[in-house]
Amino acid sequence: MSDVLSLLREALGPRVDTSPESLDAARADRSGHVAEGRPIAVVYAESVEDVQATLRIASATATPVVTQGARTGLAGAANAGAGEIALSVRRMTRILEVRPDDLLAVVEPGLLNAELNAQLAAYGLWWAPDPASRDIATVGGNIATGAGGLLCAKYGVVRDAVLGLDVVLADGRLVRLGHRSVKGVTGLDLTALMIGSEGTLGVVVGATLKLRRLVPGDVCTVAATFPSVRAAAAGSAAVTAAGLQPAIMELLDAASLDAIHRHLGLLAPLAGASQLTVQTDGPAAREEADAVAAVLTGAGGTVAVTHDRAEGERLFAVRRALLPSLQATGTVLVEDVSVPRSRMPEMFDEIVRIEREYGVAIPTVAHAGDGNLHPNFIYTGDAVPEVVWAAADDLFRAAIRLGGTLTGEHGIGVLKARWLADELGDDQWELQRRITRVFDPQGILNPGKVFTR
Amino acid sequence: MSDVLSLLREALGPRVDTSPESLDAARADRSGHVAEGRPIAVVYAESVEDVQATLRIASATATPVVTQGARTGLAGAANAGAGEIALSVRRMTRILEVRPDDLLAVVEPGLLNAELNAQLAAYGLWWAPDPASRDIATVGGNIATGAGGLLCAKYGVVRDAVLGLDVVLADGRLVRLGHRSVKGVTGLDLTALMIGSEGTLGVVVGATLKLRRLVPGDVCTVAATFPSVRAAAAGSAAVTAAGLQPAIMELLDAASLDAIHRHLGLLAPLAGASQLTVQTDGPAAREEADAVAAVLTGAGGTVAVTHDRAEGERLFAVRRALLPSLQATGTVLVEDVSVPRSRMPEMFDEIVRIEREYGVAIPTVAHAGDGNLHPNFIYTGDAVPEVVWAAADDLFRAAIRLGGTLTGEHGIGVLKARWLADELGDDQWELQRRITRVFDPQGILNPGKVFTR
Repeated sequence: MSDVLSLLREALGPRVDTSPESLDAARADRSGHVAEGRPIAVVYAESVEDVQATLRIASATATPVVTQGARTGLAGAANAGAGEIALSVRRMTRILEVRPDDLLAVVEPGLLNAELNAQLAAYGLWWAPDPASRDIATVGGNIATGAGGLLCAKYGVVRDAVLGLDVVLADGRLVRLGHRSVKGVTGLDLTALMIGSEGTLGVVVGATLKLRRLVPGDVCTVAATFPSVRAAAAGSAAVTAAGLQPAIMELLDAASLDAIHRHLGLLAPLAGASQLTVQTDGPAAREEADAVAAVLTGAGGTVAVTHDRAEGERLFAVRRALLPSLQATGTVLVEDVSVPRSRMPEMFDEIVRIEREYGVAIPTVAHAGDGNLHPNFIYTGDAVPEVVWAAADDLFRAAIRLGGTLTGEHGIGVLKARWLADELGDDQWELQRRITRVFDPQGILNPGKVFTR
Repeated sequence: MSDVLSLLREALGPRVDTSPESLDAARADRSGHVAEGRPIAVVYAESVEDVQATLRIASATATPVVTQGARTGLAGAANAGAGEIALSVRRMTRILEVRPDDLLAVVEPGLLNAELNAQLAAYGLWWAPDPASRDIATVGGNIATGAGGLLCAKYGVVRDAVLGLDVVLADGRLVRLGHRSVKGVTGLDLTALMIGSEGTLGVVVGATLKLRRLVPGDVCTVAATFPSVRAAAAGSAAVTAAGLQPAIMELLDAASLDAIHRHLGLLAPLAGASQLTVQTDGPAAREEADAVAAVLTGAGGTVAVTHDRAEGERLFAVRRALLPSLQATGTVLVEDVSVPRSRMPEMFDEIVRIEREYGVAIPTVAHAGDGNLHPNFIYTGDAVPEVVWAAADDLFRAAIRLGGTLTGEHGIGVLKARWLADELGDDQWELQRRITRVFDPQGILNPGKVFTR
């Protein structure tokens, strides 16, 4: 280990950090999971060559490498522990190129999503992926997890917004995947394979992103309260069935709404009341908001609608207050299942059943437009209690049974690795595992993550 | 070989066809390429089990398998020759499920794209990929090539329109890849890896497709004539730069326009004249068409615009007449490079240079909205002359030099395998090749295609 460290220091000098604070920080993301022990060092790469040098040393010494960005992940995928090199690309924040005519940008991975979008706004452009963590999460991390967000039903996920990737392989070689043109089907789509691969295939050192023009027109907001979460879910389904495509459609169940009202000091909602908050945008935003309001009224909702962006933000503030409201009551494990939209009411029924069976509270918010639910487990203390994992196990199996998936946008990381084969099946699990070995024959890239059982 | 045949007959009975007509037909797609020799048999699979049985026999006897659909490919990827089993999925044409609430359909691979869309129209839905061959090409073939089409800049390519795939592996095992939910990041994205893999990784036996609602509103058409192809390309760039997003934007160069006018018996266009044909759709189709017309007039075009769908189809008929017009003059090799939109004028310059240097005519049409050009090489006789390949070689290298790609939507197949490493680089070529070996350790899936050099 000391040999690895001296090799790193020789090659990378002051970019190798072994201060106890840095080593400890590198053990954790925002999932609550903390890796066992401290990593050998944190390497703050500032260039592609730094990443290559690190991987050459790791490869020569068979030392595990955990790539890190802003460590805002929610599955423990980027946590580095004993015997591992934490390779941070957080300092690689340059925007190398913006091409409004080609609707693309080439960026380094350590740039924050929000910083990118602030720069792009000057060109009238944006990168659509919008995880709730966009202010604090890196583009590289968005790519590594295959991030989603609130706008996905209308504007797509990361997979839809990346044209090409520059990747350093386990042995330090650099490959350039994908293309700069809108179309391109040369060979296998390794760009898509990298997206969501959570550090198991290589280190993304550059990304060619597919941009959109900023959407002109208004942003209108509709907030509707329903007597039950099932009624709210039926309301959201009615919006989709009417052929309307909101930019955002967020569903808060009763426990979530109640927690927010308490936290913000608002009048308590009616028992069981759930809320749907919808935003429409673009040239027809007003007409669409009015149509959404009509559909939700018809579905039994009590509806407020505004065409004013600032007033809409006030309505939407209730939704945004969820996480702080929950954190005020305990430690929060944010879960992340996704089901076909039509199965959302059944998934909410399952959550109610699991709450009852395990005696745990699971306030849930859903990106209702795309069927992605975030059930939040609240507990006290630092470690996730066994009963919470038992309830989560039941929840994951229910989601898979309903034709859904373990994770809509957070990834597998450490926390969900034990359920991976349940969803993939043993044959596919093995196939995926073997693919990682093509990229990484020694198994030094993020071992113990995703493919463990 | 006779052993393989008897095993196939035993397992699959009358679905094994060895008539000379069928064997000969299985040797060719629409690329002009014909495989050497006749395949052992054509197996017309009617079920997943038929595909599995075929692959088990192929695997046990180390016999190559070439999966076929409607054999409308343009790269020779599905041509079967001596010693190979042609595995046709063309009879697997069922639509297993349509879910308007989840905006998805589950279909078998042999269904024609146009047949699928005719069925979906009853639900007010469509599957967006629209290769020009949609009336004659299968969904499975669209997936195997990663097909594009005319509408891609606005509505995406196949990669954007598939949620999951059921795949039979080389050894006959069935795996279910992907998901039914809008979001899902469980493990590696093998669905994306399958798309465009041209029969080298497995046999697609079922596809969960992401659908769109039929676009309401008008379809409006703008046809603009420019004094040169460069001016037309600049006109299309001006449309994109104005933030307009047409559904279709097709560019015909002077040689193409001239050939069409001759074929249709129209008055000859002015020397050098090129044409841009644009269609807009959706609720704002009229306003957008008028805006496009204004931009193109400003860019020096002579513009006709119509808000009438039937009249628009008449204007568009000129574009649609290209292939028959060219085929009236000789044998046509349809090429398929793609470049960043901003490089299109330079790519047209390169085509002019190549025409001059090699003394060949290369009438070209471009999907100008996304930078995908189809240079057409015209020659006499069946075999592609060496000078055409030399010119094509120059063309491919020019596209790569401009930041583009060998193939926007047709695939590599047999015809472009020798240029694959030029675009991918040797390291990536080798990585991709090794991935195919994970799926297919014996190398029995479509050998001699894509990864040969």
